[in-house]
Amino acid sequence: MRTVQQYIDKLRSMRPNVYMGGRLVPRDDPRFMGGIRTIATTIECGLDPQYSDLMTARSHLTGKTINRYTHVHQSVEDLLKKQEMTRFLCRKVGGCIDRCMGIDATNALSVVTKDCDNAHGTDYHQRFLKWLEYFQENDLVAACAQTDVKGDRSKRPHEQADPDLYVHVVEKRDDGIIVRGAKNHISIVPYADEIIVVPTRALTQKDADYAVAFAIPADAEGVKLVTRATGTRERKILTGSVGQYQVDCYVIFEDTFVPWERVFLCGEHMFGGMLALMFALYHRHSYTGCKPAVSDCLMGQAALVAEYNGIEKAHHVREKLADYVAVAELVYGAGIASAVKARRAASGTYVPDPVYVNVARYHAGVNLYHEFEMLADLSGGLPATLPPEEDFFSPETGPLLHKYIMRNPKISAENQHRLFRLLSDTLCSAMGGVAQVGGMHGGGSPVMEKIGIMAAYDIEARKRLAKQLAGIRD
Amino acid sequence: MRTVQQYIDKLRSMRPNVYMGGRLVPRDDPRFMGGIRTIATTIECGLDPQYSDLMTARSHLTGKTINRYTHVHQSVEDLLKKQEMTRFLCRKVGGCIDRCMGIDATNALSVVTKDCDNAHGTDYHQRFLKWLEYFQENDLVAACAQTDVKGDRSKRPHEQADPDLYVHVVEKRDDGIIVRGAKNHISIVPYADEIIVVPTRALTQKDADYAVAFAIPADAEGVKLVTRATGTRERKILTGSVGQYQVDCYVIFEDTFVPWERVFLCGEHMFGGMLALMFALYHRHSYTGCKPAVSDCLMGQAALVAEYNGIEKAHHVREKLADYVAVAELVYGAGIASAVKARRAASGTYVPDPVYVNVARYHAGVNLYHEFEMLADLSGGLPATLPPEEDFFSPETGPLLHKYIMRNPKISAENQHRLFRLLSDTLCSAMGGVAQVGGMHGGGSPVMEKIGIMAAYDIEARKRLAKQLAGIRD
Amino acid sequence: MRTVQQYIDKLRSMRPNVYMGGRLVPRDDPRFMGGIRTIATTIECGLDPQYSDLMTARSHLTGKTINRYTHVHQSVEDLLKKQEMTRFLCRKVGGCIDRCMGIDATNALSVVTKDCDNAHGTDYHQRFLKWLEYFQENDLVAACAQTDVKGDRSKRPHEQADPDLYVHVVEKRDDGIIVRGAKNHISIVPYADEIIVVPTRALTQKDADYAVAFAIPADAEGVKLVTRATGTRERKILTGSVGQYQVDCYVIFEDTFVPWERVFLCGEHMFGGMLALMFALYHRHSYTGCKPAVSDCLMGQAALVAEYNGIEKAHHVREKLADYVAVAELVYGAGIASAVKARRAASGTYVPDPVYVNVARYHAGVNLYHEFEMLADLSGGLPATLPPEEDFFSPETGPLLHKYIMRNPKISAENQHRLFRLLSDTLCSAMGGVAQVGGMHGGGSPVMEKIGIMAAYDIEARKRLAKQLAGIRD
Amino acid sequence: MRTVQQYIDKLRSMRPNVYMGGRLVPRDDPRFMGGIRTIATTIECGLDPQYSDLMTARSHLTGKTINRYTHVHQSVEDLLKKQEMTRFLCRKVGGCIDRCMGIDATNALSVVTKDCDNAHGTDYHQRFLKWLEYFQENDLVAACAQTDVKGDRSKRPHEQADPDLYVHVVEKRDDGIIVRGAKNHISIVPYADEIIVVPTRALTQKDADYAVAFAIPADAEGVKLVTRATGTRERKILTGSVGQYQVDCYVIFEDTFVPWERVFLCGEHMFGGMLALMFALYHRHSYTGCKPAVSDCLMGQAALVAEYNGIEKAHHVREKLADYVAVAELVYGAGIASAVKARRAASGTYVPDPVYVNVARYHAGVNLYHEFEMLADLSGGLPATLPPEEDFFSPETGPLLHKYIMRNPKISAENQHRLFRLLSDTLCSAMGGVAQVGGMHGGGSPVMEKIGIMAAYDIEARKRLAKQLAGIRD
Repeated sequence: MRTVQQYIDKLRSMRPNVYMGGRLVPRDDPRFMGGIRTIATTIECGLDPQYSDLMTARSHLTGKTINRYTHVHQSVEDLLKKQEMTRFLCRKVGGCIDRCMGIDATNALSVVTKDCDNAHGTDYHQRFLKWLEYFQENDLVAACAQTDVKGDRSKRPHEQADPDLYVHVVEKRDDGIIVRGAKNHISIVPYADEIIVVPTRALTQKDADYAVAFAIPADAEGVKLVTRATGTRERKILTGSVGQYQVDCYVIFEDTFVPWERVFLCGEHMFGGMLALMFALYHRHSYTGCKPAVSDCLMGQAALVAEYNGIEKAHHVREKLADYVAVAELVYGAGIASAVKARRAASGTYVPDPVYVNVARYHAGVNLYHEFEMLADLSGGLPATLPPEEDFFSPETGPLLHKYIMRNPKISAENQHRLFRLLSDTLCSAMGGVAQVGGMHGGGSPVMEKIGIMAAYDIEARKRLAKQLAGIRD
Repeated sequence: MRTVQQYIDKLRSMRPNVYMGGRLVPRDDPRFMGGIRTIATTIECGLDPQYSDLMTARSHLTGKTINRYTHVHQSVEDLLKKQEMTRFLCRKVGGCIDRCMGIDATNALSVVTKDCDNAHGTDYHQRFLKWLEYFQENDLVAACAQTDVKGDRSKRPHEQADPDLYVHVVEKRDDGIIVRGAKNHISIVPYADEIIVVPTRALTQKDADYAVAFAIPADAEGVKLVTRATGTRERKILTGSVGQYQVDCYVIFEDTFVPWERVFLCGEHMFGGMLALMFALYHRHSYTGCKPAVSDCLMGQAALVAEYNGIEKAHHVREKLADYVAVAELVYGAGIASAVKARRAASGTYVPDPVYVNVARYHAGVNLYHEFEMLADLSGGLPATLPPEEDFFSPETGPLLHKYIMRNPKISAENQHRLFRLLSDTLCSAMGGVAQVGGMHGGGSPVMEKIGIMAAYDIEARKRLAKQLAGIRD
Repeated sequence: MRTVQQYIDKLRSMRPNVYMGGRLVPRDDPRFMGGIRTIATTIECGLDPQYSDLMTARSHLTGKTINRYTHVHQSVEDLLKKQEMTRFLCRKVGGCIDRCMGIDATNALSVVTKDCDNAHGTDYHQRFLKWLEYFQENDLVAACAQTDVKGDRSKRPHEQADPDLYVHVVEKRDDGIIVRGAKNHISIVPYADEIIVVPTRALTQKDADYAVAFAIPADAEGVKLVTRATGTRERKILTGSVGQYQVDCYVIFEDTFVPWERVFLCGEHMFGGMLALMFALYHRHSYTGCKPAVSDCLMGQAALVAEYNGIEKAHHVREKLADYVAVAELVYGAGIASAVKARRAASGTYVPDPVYVNVARYHAGVNLYHEFEMLADLSGGLPATLPPEEDFFSPETGPLLHKYIMRNPKISAENQHRLFRLLSDTLCSAMGGVAQVGGMHGGGSPVMEKIGIMAAYDIEARKRLAKQLAGIRD
Repeated sequence: MRTVQQYIDKLRSMRPNVYMGGRLVPRDDPRFMGGIRTIATTIECGLDPQYSDLMTARSHLTGKTINRYTHVHQSVEDLLKKQEMTRFLCRKVGGCIDRCMGIDATNALSVVTKDCDNAHGTDYHQRFLKWLEYFQENDLVAACAQTDVKGDRSKRPHEQADPDLYVHVVEKRDDGIIVRGAKNHISIVPYADEIIVVPTRALTQKDADYAVAFAIPADAEGVKLVTRATGTRERKILTGSVGQYQVDCYVIFEDTFVPWERVFLCGEHMFGGMLALMFALYHRHSYTGCKPAVSDCLMGQAALVAEYNGIEKAHHVREKLADYVAVAELVYGAGIASAVKARRAASGTYVPDPVYVNVARYHAGVNLYHEFEMLADLSGGLPATLPPEEDFFSPETGPLLHKYIMRNPKISAENQHRLFRLLSDTLCSAMGGVAQVGGMHGGGSPVMEKIGIMAAYDIEARKRLAKQLAGIRD
């Protein structure tokens, strides 16, 4: 397992292909440092003996100890630990842990490459395992590029006016393939080592060129990363807080070459759709860990502002806090159930139960705005109207603001100020809005989980039950 | 394990003390037969080899095979199986399985009698185990009488204008105790063998006389059972359906004698409160099995009426069905999690995690009316306006009603009629209303689960998390 | 205006054509007496000088004073008064006032017959006015039969396997028409004088035979009324309460003759659809008066049980009561707005604004189950478990039940008993279920109002607004 | 009525007392220009003959034509027009119209000064009218400073550790009073002419010094304005959009002198509380106009993005749009009802009905986050991940982004880009968060409206209704 320094040194050595605000920017741009610190947390905890049970695993390929983020789940216990690790780390960094895409994509590939080989006699699984060994050995960080830009939502990939609106193979060569298209909403790419590309939807025979999966270094030739970075305001005086950020890219492939040893699916359209679902399933399993952590953070702020405002014991405050708990633990509990009810795939990988994963992610998604709403309700208007940090430290206005922010006399003005500045970041910053939209759509919108639920659930058994109650015999 | 016939014979042999409609009624009154059939189902399945893994257990007292309903949970697996058995049986009978109170009360007593003995040097646990052996050997059915009539809700037991508004000890004798008071909302008593009495709330030193727990035969001297029975209308022509029913009592103790060997708590006020909570915890654990079964039944009716109305593929129907799944499986999933996170008590009994149990029961409770609402939405108005059964079979009107009830020509008029008659029972009968109110309050109202959640959850840890995010150092 | 006695005498003189439970039943069957008393209330209040401003109007045909229920709205004020009268009377009888269908159907016919005449040169309006004068003079009560049985929901009337699944003209004669088919969910018919028949949906050219509207005496030859009556349990001892009931029919036309002077639409398919919408619009306007009254009744029970339970000042109780007020008054307020924004039709009739009417009915519909849920929450389990009335008055159990029902010592046991018996009727009776289903679907389900909203609202103007905000110039 | 130029010239002539970011800033700071343009819109529309009926009124003091924003409502019609004007202007500027505080405060003062004079023989009303004439003549813009910083929420003003945590009179002189304290969350002050100060809560005898109301120029000696300004990102290339902004202040009084002719309440504690409620009532009435406009803006964006994504006809999209309409028009409809049911105060001013005003504001408040949620749902993730404007216009990435943002081929890439940039501003900017928090708390949080509802509603009448239903006779 590598060190944080090694990770950052590698980032700095990569080919510049990150664009933002109309310019090429370096991979250690300050706006990426929040993300880099997050990845660093996953590395540090992986190296920390006190977390070794949670953060590391034994590679089923090499038997070596590896960071759990590069592991393929070999048991129910592995799934439970991945969920627990996710919540633990997300609480540590106060939000998204950034590295889940890698573990979710590698697990999905481990299952689907094997199933495809079994069906078609291909040899994707061995290729994938070889690459996985490299990935584990070097303790790499991967983004997963799934969502295509999709053009006209009512048309399939091959029906689009512009065939590039989904990523596809434009040429097959002896040594590899050429791909073209763009993936959108792809998080963490500027500070990831690798990009894993998987399809985004069910595919028909005519969409065979779109059934493509591969891994590619994030700075490969022919890859452009057009980036949006959003963060909470940097503190100048009241430092010591944990800042949130979000970094997403358009990952654009301009006739990019991928060597065969990195191609894990190419043309088997049925398995393209299955891989899309399988990655989504694992990624939603990650959400059963991270969304409860987000609820923990919001709930903590809600409880603290209630305490500072002296209303902690009020009935409606207790009701709201219990609402947070219910959201967090129903999601986490269904995640546990998804592991308990997991199945072992042909490859030996454990696959969480899709119904429990989807109801968990669904519940998280439909409650997210409500969680922000409850925090806004308890916080009052100050998060929206708090003057800039500097006014609290200018001689003309600082003493006045410190005088007038006082609530509970036992809590210092600075701490009251700190809390409301955090609330202002959570509720009234661009980052807050990104957290809402990302928290709703990341890993699939609630409507996608409902589709996932209905695909996996045995409704016919329930109809038979109704017939039994009604005395209907067909 | 006894047979159904033995169970019914014993009922018939009991002292008449069941009052309903102003009269003494026999224990095999037709209005109790729905309940008796339900208990019979638990007996029959217990004797059926195909269900032996689910329905039976090995007694930790005698090593004998016993019906799981008389078992004390010795492992996580036992908790998982109890939950699974509950859902399985509730689906079989189309609603409440009636026998959960017994297993929940015995498990709670197994924990708290031991803890009390450890704290006070009493010997309740051995007494209880002896009684439990009798209970297991005879495969008995127990009601649990917890909820007192409670009088003025703002006052403690000892503060009430009438001291009898909570059940209490009025005299201690050498051979036993005398109790007085009334328990209310007590289900199944007219067709149960035993009544287990436990306290209903936290108690102070001054409430010591109210800290009393015991088991008593349901027909004991000094016990009156004033009963309400509600059922769906009996079918005269369209038989073959599964009727629902509900039977509840005021269990009134008129200076009733209980011998010491059946007294499991008497005066230890702290453990009175703990026993109240412990029974509630186990009983809510039962709800993690039965409420998903209720959702299964409602969901099945919703899916079937949508099919019969030809709108099964409509977006809003799929949305509603997915809503049912989400409710059912979030509740069931949290139940699974409560077993996975269970603790082993001093007595060796496994206690499910209170947070997961409470969020599960809470979620079931706050969604129940919504589940009925969705079914009403999909069913249209006919459940409210369907003419009586007889009109469908009279020569003057029957052919007309059969002609005009037709929807999908492939489904017979009789089956369409059967379905809407079931829907009319589910949505527009006294039983439907009882199912709503009972489903909300049984095992504790949502507000009680919120209290349970807040008592068990580590909110302070979340506040520390918020301080870490804000950079607050106390 | 006639007296109650005249109304009942006429009922008794009518041809027996009411079927229930497989038999012909008289129009003064005890199960219809609740409804007859309700209609009687509208008659008595109409004759009572203290209510003359609210309950009567000046006929625009004859200038005579008439019961407002036979009036055609000539002003905004008339619409406001109709709404106010509806709420006033519904509170008086504790639920549905039964007579709104008549006023809503006559108003709809007054508008659409005129519009149709203007478009097609027909003379429906004069025929209608002549009949209306008769209706006003005799102070008659009309049911409106709109909803057809509808068969396969995905097919239009003329596409059905059985052409009779919508009411249609099977023959046109010199003296009138012959109609066949069945209308369903038709309230109050057994104690109404007249049935007004209108189409139920938009119609195409091919559905022209289904575009038929007429008025017919409720006991006309060729009309069968197959009936369901639901009521709260009759009290034997605790009399004095206001019982609820609901009476609905299949109104079946077996080649029924209607003379031309009573035919108000026959073949003009566009106006068939418009009449369907226009009746729905007026009927939903009635709901802006009656649903707030239903909320008043539920809210009153909620407030009273909270008072009796001694928790009236609790925060969550105040919250729930305010929720009831918000539902009631948002619905009532939108009803007021629908009058303020009314339009005057070609016939001179005032037509309430469809957006406000539909948002009002929609809001009532989607909150109804929640209103029952809140009442159940505040009432606790006793409505489901209250023993029969007789047990409260038998010497063996009565004194015990009176002892143990006590809460606030200042409130008599009888009053506490009376309240919970009412709650048991409201929440746990067949009538309660019918009120839920009827309250959701009567006048159109929430999904129908959403369609009504979208049909009437200027969404394009909002898109232009968005383009202005975005700086988009097409 | 003055011109925009006169308004801005006056702003520029005022004493600098606006602090932001630790510095004194001018009143025409670019961050205030959004607000200044909004006020300018109210001035321009007031001068525009096509809007004269809506935007102007006849002063009841001078008979002159005045901008409606300086008018005191003399009729139901005035209230209806104020509501309509508010929605009209808010749609024009795409959000808050900023000038409502002035009209709401003057109307509240017109009522309460008269009532106080009638009770106490004071002469506040004449003083106020004299100032009002000046206000009308000069077409001034007023902020209203109501909300005190409030310190410990569980203590009354006079009980606070620091007496200055509510604004209070520290000295009465012959020529006027000296006040100290701070008001918080006060919008628009840097570009307002006047500040009207009113109390924030009910007051006891001991709080008499806190019962103070007055008007003061916004740049008066002894007034410091510590400011927070939030806006959407300024567009560099895609200009032409309507930017949102929000400007709020701590208004700090450091022993500020107010001459008696500008003092409208001083010590009459009962009327202090009444004035607090009366301003809140009028201000919530403003919300019955502005919140529907906010819904219009969100609904328009929702409809447009659905159109651009080609899913406009989808069932769930129609459902969501109807939800927006229901929110907007239930709020607006209740606003209309509040005018129809208004009362005439002793001063002749019309006061809207408090129940309808409060249910309207409540409904707006509890639906706001849901409105954002629906927009996020329909917009997908792009608002959170859209790269900066510059990337769309750089040669390296611009053509690629324009290629890959295409959806419906008939809509230009620029327009699709413009729409998503607007959505990114609405959903994922600091301004979006401020709109959420401000939209929830401005004019009073939902919990405050529930208190307002319960204070004004006749719950006892509903309890009597329940007793009538139950047959309870006290």
